Amino acid sequence: MQVVVIGANACGAKAGCRIKRLNPKAEVILIDKDEVISYGACGIPYFISGDVPNENALRETSYHVVRDERFFENAKGLKVLIKTLAEEIDRTRKTVKVRYLETGKTEEIPYDKLVIATGSLPRRLNVPGEDLDGVYTISSFKGAIEIKERIARGEVEKVAVIGAGLIGLEMTEAFRDLWELDVTLLEYFPQILPRNLDPFMARIVERHLKQKGVNLLLNARIKEIVGKEGRVRGVQTENEFIEADLVIVAVGVIPNSELARKAGILVSPTTGGIIVNDRLQTSDPDIYAGGDCIEIPHLITGKKVVMPMGSLANRQGRVIGSNIAGYPAVFKGTVGAFILKCFELSIGGVGLTLSQAKQEGFKADYALNNQTERSHFYPDAKYAYYALIFDRETTRVLGFQAVGPLTDGTLARLHAISSILPHKPLVEDLLQLELAYAPPFNSALDPIHDTAHVADNLIKGLFRSISWEEVLSRLKRGDENTLVLDLRHPKEAEFNLKTYKNVKHILYQEFRHHLQEIPQDKDIILICNSSRRAYEVARILQAEGFERIYVPLGGVSFPVRWGEKIK
Amino acid sequence: MQVVVIGANACGAKAGCRIKRLNPKAEVILIDKDEVISYGACGIPYFISGDVPNENALRETSYHVVRDERFFENAKGLKVLIKTLAEEIDRTRKTVKVRYLETGKTEEIPYDKLVIATGSLPRRLNVPGEDLDGVYTISSFKGAIEIKERIARGEVEKVAVIGAGLIGLEMTEAFRDLWELDVTLLEYFPQILPRNLDPFMARIVERHLKQKGVNLLLNARIKEIVGKEGRVRGVQTENEFIEADLVIVAVGVIPNSELARKAGILVSPTTGGIIVNDRLQTSDPDIYAGGDCIEIPHLITGKKVVMPMGSLANRQGRVIGSNIAGYPAVFKGTVGAFILKCFELSIGGVGLTLSQAKQEGFKADYALNNQTERSHFYPDAKYAYYALIFDRETTRVLGFQAVGPLTDGTLARLHAISSILPHKPLVEDLLQLELAYAPPFNSALDPIHDTAHVADNLIKGLFRSISWEEVLSRLKRGDENTLVLDLRHPKEAEFNLKTYKNVKHILYQEFRHHLQEIPQDKDIILICNSSRRAYEVARILQAEGFERIYVPLGGVSFPVRWGEKIK
Repeated sequence: MQVVVIGANACGAKAGCRIKRLNPKAEVILIDKDEVISYGACGIPYFISGDVPNENALRETSYHVVRDERFFENAKGLKVLIKTLAEEIDRTRKTVKVRYLETGKTEEIPYDKLVIATGSLPRRLNVPGEDLDGVYTISSFKGAIEIKERIARGEVEKVAVIGAGLIGLEMTEAFRDLWELDVTLLEYFPQILPRNLDPFMARIVERHLKQKGVNLLLNARIKEIVGKEGRVRGVQTENEFIEADLVIVAVGVIPNSELARKAGILVSPTTGGIIVNDRLQTSDPDIYAGGDCIEIPHLITGKKVVMPMGSLANRQGRVIGSNIAGYPAVFKGTVGAFILKCFELSIGGVGLTLSQAKQEGFKADYALNNQTERSHFYPDAKYAYYALIFDRETTRVLGFQAVGPLTDGTLARLHAISSILPHKPLVEDLLQLELAYAPPFNSALDPIHDTAHVADNLIKGLFRSISWEEVLSRLKRGDENTLVLDLRHPKEAEFNLKTYKNVKHILYQEFRHHLQEIPQDKDIILICNSSRRAYEVARILQAEGFERIYVPLGGVSFPVRWGEKIK
Repeated sequence: MQVVVIGANACGAKAGCRIKRLNPKAEVILIDKDEVISYGACGIPYFISGDVPNENALRETSYHVVRDERFFENAKGLKVLIKTLAEEIDRTRKTVKVRYLETGKTEEIPYDKLVIATGSLPRRLNVPGEDLDGVYTISSFKGAIEIKERIARGEVEKVAVIGAGLIGLEMTEAFRDLWELDVTLLEYFPQILPRNLDPFMARIVERHLKQKGVNLLLNARIKEIVGKEGRVRGVQTENEFIEADLVIVAVGVIPNSELARKAGILVSPTTGGIIVNDRLQTSDPDIYAGGDCIEIPHLITGKKVVMPMGSLANRQGRVIGSNIAGYPAVFKGTVGAFILKCFELSIGGVGLTLSQAKQEGFKADYALNNQTERSHFYPDAKYAYYALIFDRETTRVLGFQAVGPLTDGTLARLHAISSILPHKPLVEDLLQLELAYAPPFNSALDPIHDTAHVADNLIKGLFRSISWEEVLSRLKRGDENTLVLDLRHPKEAEFNLKTYKNVKHILYQEFRHHLQEIPQDKDIILICNSSRRAYEVARILQAEGFERIYVPLGGVSFPVRWGEKIK
């Protein structure tokens, strides 16, 4: 059996090696247009930041051998053709026409089974100046080395990063943290990570970026990348000119499915991804495809999506290898889990955001929670912020987001939710999760439990929530029909009492003795740090017949972390 | 409605407060025989170690208010009777007879609904000397304060901890780490954590304990706790005398179900736990029970077990509160998840150990894996050790164990497995888990994936495993029918080549050129650090017709971490 694999990174290299492990007698030919193959593309920001000491580290195995073409040939027994472009697939004759880029010569290589792992192409902005010297996408190993060399040579002082998605944020930190460059981050949408977070979480990260000295421009419409003598000089938005001697365009990727489409393999007109079944076979049963170039089912919506993630590509490579070697395997789909380091924050999410869930037609609602990642009495227990997205009608869990300190605590909660999400859990099912506890690692009730409790209480109608935007607006305009009751220690309430005239302080643990001080003819908004005390007091007041009682979700900690004028 | 709650810690306090939140007009009376209520019992080791600065910290809310009886009365609206012993339940008249321990007076308190949250009692050793001054169990707040005072006064130099379970290990660290006391840890079984880990994981922890200066005695049969003038002096085992001026007996707990049993409530004769349904109702529908005093279904075996964990007690308290207040809720059972800090290790597990699984009649087998917790190229990526227990016949996942560095990485993998375990996953289902990846937090393939790959390859018969015990035995006796092939860098293989005569070195990535050097008439055992390279070479040799090929699970890293004579 001869297997040809087009593309020698995450998915392709994995598929090829898996085939050889299962069937050492198979002939596997790995083709890649680049010179450098099987590098950890997700590590590029850490190579540029200096966390990863040299470029070879991204190409090494865990036992420190460089995964170059010789390694794949000697150790893995694959034939590797680098600097070789796959130009055409002839499905009738079962051949791939390749062009050797160094010599310009072409050849037809026959296959019994073919794997298309052509990855993705960086999305273009389609504005003038995108091809100027000094404008990069994060899509090649060579480009990454060039960027680092420019910085090391002292040629870069000001960087503009266009696109505040996952890669844009990682690159922003890479430039800012070690190199201390002057970084402007430009985002088209009114928030960072628009596809990954809702504003209540994104705003925590936005403030953190600003505190780290990043010049963050939201709602930025790029008109032109401006150059002089072929070299980039800056970015012109609708409103301003940003000087830059290096520009990173990180506005997403599109599936590199053209080769497949030209060969008559079915490609989705909506997503642009190659259509595959759950064994990752294309419309031609002898041709498999995986990685960034395919579309896969989203396990929450049931719709097909392109989800360009290195982890999925690796898993898909193994599935393809197994199937080709005669060991049936399936890849069922994605729940869209991501995690991200951003300076001193860990940021993660899975499933749908609130706005995505509403777009998909769910009666979506959300619960917020802030809680220490370990027992609050344990030293150095730091606060993290959680959001749960759920459907009000069915109580189904639709998504989860977390922003926490730089521990693996965010990963832990994500791992739990992503593992269970394909089972279509209800909020009630989250209460059943057994989440290990010891004070150095967790609270007796995991943050997932307490976030789900908020959702559960909302679903049961035990309290009425109000958005912090609305609360802040009423505070700022001194709304006379609203009384904000601050339930915390008098010192904690001081700033709000001094700043706003419609705030009153009653200590939580003495609340039951002060019921007569609460007006019946106003909206009562109860606040404390996490809204736990506020919820309890709401229950008391409701039992006493008060009707206009509101609890803002997540506590004062949220707007404080957004940088709002509240303490 | 009047609700009486017997026991004011994790489960009881939670149940009482939940009832008041759902139904603020309910009368809730919390009864406890102790003076100190609602303290974080799981925090005692950290109070003794000094990580938690003072005893009040264990009783404080996250907003630093002490949860004493006044707090429960003022803030929560419960009536609290401390130093009050519940002596008898009259189910016909629906009353609880209590004795006020300070005055000796008794009273009958009527209830509409009753909650039994009487917790557990420390298991006794039943040897002479158990009541000597200086012998403690970790079962009371007062005892913990006494222990710390004795140490602080300089009265303690040598400590004996009897029982290397979760509490015993936490206490060992508490005495050793900050106070640098001379600690002997005695365990009846031939390994530490016998109910939680299999030997292949326990041995890593045992070596770590020894490296931390703990005197670890396994297979220790305690004959007597020896004293002089009423004060403890040491521990006499079958073999030796261990000097000690403080002795901790931590040999487990038993459900404190006597009050329930005397009242005619059904108590299991096998587990000793109060029998409850999934709404946590006892055999008397007006009486609920939760926490350490009940038995619950084990979701892997279906059998009833007692699982005395603070996290479960808290969740059960909420379920009881909901049900009593008219909001139906269930508690479905346990998968037995635990996590533990032990000096610089995090240790966790869930489900059944290999030996438990075999005892339960499963055709149990296991896979081992060692892997960095984050991308191997990311700075400070540390190795962690994983075991997956599964059923060979059904391929069902039965358990998971992890030993890693002091991060939240172990928690993350545990959270994923415990969340999915109630769904009875197969090994194949673990390959489908979507586990978020970015280099600072994970590998592209999570350690769960790679551990499941080993299991999957075993199930598919792709290689034959051999235990490290067997490999070490053949090395040590120089077995002539065995050739151990070390596939690593020559420097890594040096020690083994020098130490054992039946070891040969062939570099992994040059292996294909050296096939003629491999004898057909010997058992070939392939070794490398993690067994990934060994597995690949096994596949090549098998394809070449070699039949006696073995790969020890988990790689050399396991016996190295056990302290065996191998490198």
